[in-house]
Amino acid sequence: MAGLHVSLRSIDGVAMSGDISIDNMMQKALEIPGLLSLAAGFTDNGLAPRAQVQEICNAILMDDSRAETLQYGLPIGRRKLREQLAHRLVKQDQANGATPTPIGADETIITTGSQQALFLAVQALCEPGDIILVEDPTYFVMLDVLRTLGVRAVAMPAQNDTLDIDALDDFFAQLQERGDLDRVRSMYLISYFSNPSSKCLSLEQKTGLLDAMKRHHLHVPIIEDIAYREFFFEAPYPAPSLLAWETPEIPILLTGTLTKLFSTGLKVGWLIVQEPALRQRLADLKRCQDFGTANFPQAICEEAIERGMLDEYLDYMRPIYHEKARALDAGLRENGLQDLGWTWEPAGGALYLWLRAPEGVATGPASDLSRICLEEKVIYVPGELCSAGEGAGRVRLSYGSLTPEDLYEAAARFVRAAKRVADR
Amino acid sequence: MAGLHVSLRSIDGVAMSGDISIDNMMQKALEIPGLLSLAAGFTDNGLAPRAQVQEICNAILMDDSRAETLQYGLPIGRRKLREQLAHRLVKQDQANGATPTPIGADETIITTGSQQALFLAVQALCEPGDIILVEDPTYFVMLDVLRTLGVRAVAMPAQNDTLDIDALDDFFAQLQERGDLDRVRSMYLISYFSNPSSKCLSLEQKTGLLDAMKRHHLHVPIIEDIAYREFFFEAPYPAPSLLAWETPEIPILLTGTLTKLFSTGLKVGWLIVQEPALRQRLADLKRCQDFGTANFPQAICEEAIERGMLDEYLDYMRPIYHEKARALDAGLRENGLQDLGWTWEPAGGALYLWLRAPEGVATGPASDLSRICLEEKVIYVPGELCSAGEGAGRVRLSYGSLTPEDLYEAAARFVRAAKRVADR
Repeated sequence: MAGLHVSLRSIDGVAMSGDISIDNMMQKALEIPGLLSLAAGFTDNGLAPRAQVQEICNAILMDDSRAETLQYGLPIGRRKLREQLAHRLVKQDQANGATPTPIGADETIITTGSQQALFLAVQALCEPGDIILVEDPTYFVMLDVLRTLGVRAVAMPAQNDTLDIDALDDFFAQLQERGDLDRVRSMYLISYFSNPSSKCLSLEQKTGLLDAMKRHHLHVPIIEDIAYREFFFEAPYPAPSLLAWETPEIPILLTGTLTKLFSTGLKVGWLIVQEPALRQRLADLKRCQDFGTANFPQAICEEAIERGMLDEYLDYMRPIYHEKARALDAGLRENGLQDLGWTWEPAGGALYLWLRAPEGVATGPASDLSRICLEEKVIYVPGELCSAGEGAGRVRLSYGSLTPEDLYEAAARFVRAAKRVADR
Repeated sequence: MAGLHVSLRSIDGVAMSGDISIDNMMQKALEIPGLLSLAAGFTDNGLAPRAQVQEICNAILMDDSRAETLQYGLPIGRRKLREQLAHRLVKQDQANGATPTPIGADETIITTGSQQALFLAVQALCEPGDIILVEDPTYFVMLDVLRTLGVRAVAMPAQNDTLDIDALDDFFAQLQERGDLDRVRSMYLISYFSNPSSKCLSLEQKTGLLDAMKRHHLHVPIIEDIAYREFFFEAPYPAPSLLAWETPEIPILLTGTLTKLFSTGLKVGWLIVQEPALRQRLADLKRCQDFGTANFPQAICEEAIERGMLDEYLDYMRPIYHEKARALDAGLRENGLQDLGWTWEPAGGALYLWLRAPEGVATGPASDLSRICLEEKVIYVPGELCSAGEGAGRVRLSYGSLTPEDLYEAAARFVRAAKRVADR
């Protein structure tokens, strides 16, 4: 299909190895001994639930009646797993005060990670040249998908790194004036502990957004990415998913993952779509793309839910990742980053801090900061990559894979680099 | 993207369950108690290598140094597995007399089954309206992929159910006259124990095909699907892959699977491409589609190769599937199908018999044969589905999933149905 772009594309994927062609910056970084990466959005290998997965594999593989787990499954995924997922979602939305439309296994499609769900959604909804509206900032891998498929990402207005509802009327009117509103095919939202901003969309924002879309007759499906919804530190964020609003004119394509925190190596994501024609289109594309996500990892996830292991593991991990988040935050503060004029908010979940540099300090791949960070043996994701708007002067730091001690040290290095930039 | 077609699309995938919307015929069939399916292209659940996979899972998950198997891998797949695959291919081609260009891990991309490899190839090479040339018959799931992506499948001339090299010059000339030759973007070949014909492409056919393409300046990549190459019964088929011809003007996109016979539930396939620009394009699409095939099943396959378990298992399975093939063949012969004018050849590998009905007997989804087979509680895949040309009067029977006893019984039922059709 149209134009494939290759630059800066694999930061989340390649920090483990320099195996594929990437930007010089990343390539160089990977060759530096002792480098601490705050760039890769990985979880911590040392915390992988090896014992749990082993127990499940043994149980499955010793059971004569479950030889089917080593066989093809359905293209849309294991029925029981789809039931579990739908049930889980309904329960979460109810806990957040919603009385959601009943969702069932039939509305659910299992995907190879939530990455495949995003790709399927874009491919099902867009032709090259179409527009998808995104938050500013947004998930940079989604921007890569859009570029690769020739779809234009247009940033919606933001305030304080989250959707600015009050500015939407003007924004939609401008799109209309430019003749672009008719090319908008979808909207992409990361509504819980966003990568990279760590923000959630409130009940008021969700209501306001849907109302504004209706006022402007923007009746297009919303892709709501709730990948980090269950990856909170102290309490779930108290807003239901967009399904709870029951807006037939704006179909919701909900997507998430079971394995981002549990075991990314199993790679089991999902899509929930109520609108029948769109769901059929997604199922057709899924079938053609890979004839169904590998059955065995699905069976492992199914069993992890059934045995309560997934929830136990999430409960066990939350304070551990919270401690990581606090170690990075403390390292930045105690080494004096705020005194240099940098600002950020603590994270309530997921894996990221989103920093704003002082006025005039560039953070892009070719910036002094980026170069000096390499000298200090620490790397980050430049904000430009996470934005379809400007994104300049921003930095994404991830605390997922390093230990609290290394995070503190990485933070100290980052602050040293920021000081050197300030002193120039 | 353009036009999604949904009919008759999932026979290989849905015979396990009536979970998704399919043709009435299949839907009805699945509700019939005691039905024996010769339709689904599955291997035998009862023969799944559960003990082997269990041993490997335990070894991997108890090893501290291998926690990375539960983490993301590279988008193009595990390096060691790619090395193993490349090595395996070079060895096979050498055993068949070729001195192939050295292939390495860098030329190899791991995919979620060979199905994803086919989808990636079509998406990388074609726009809607483009043409891919296919054999007649060909893999019906590939025809589904082409329809779904809006790509036209055009059948090449065949004789005795395999590529008719002598007819290629006329065929290419006709394409040229119709103005279609310029829209041909690729060619799809199943060169070992084809699904459905069970034929292999000989050395002479491969040479003749490449020569004809060069004569007509048809310099497009060939997708060579060798999924069943290692699934022979008595001896490997003695022709190397097309890589051995070293034709830079006709890039080869070789694809296969590690798990079709071993464990389809692990779903690990692969692509080997030497041409750098095409390989980069495929890697970009793969990265965007799912950010890499699940790492844990890849690690299981890697270990199965390393421990020699994959080869042991293949050696163990060959006579078992050979016996199945013979049971189906015997059931058809001994119950008198030949006497009714039906013809077929025994299979040398893989999972299929490809039958030709006597002149005038229809075999399509709406035919008497199809209806009466349902009454006799046996189902098959109509030849029309496996052909971009006519395919009428053909039947694909699969012997993968049933026991020899059930295969003999299913054959008896099929012959009864054929007799009832003949008697009308």
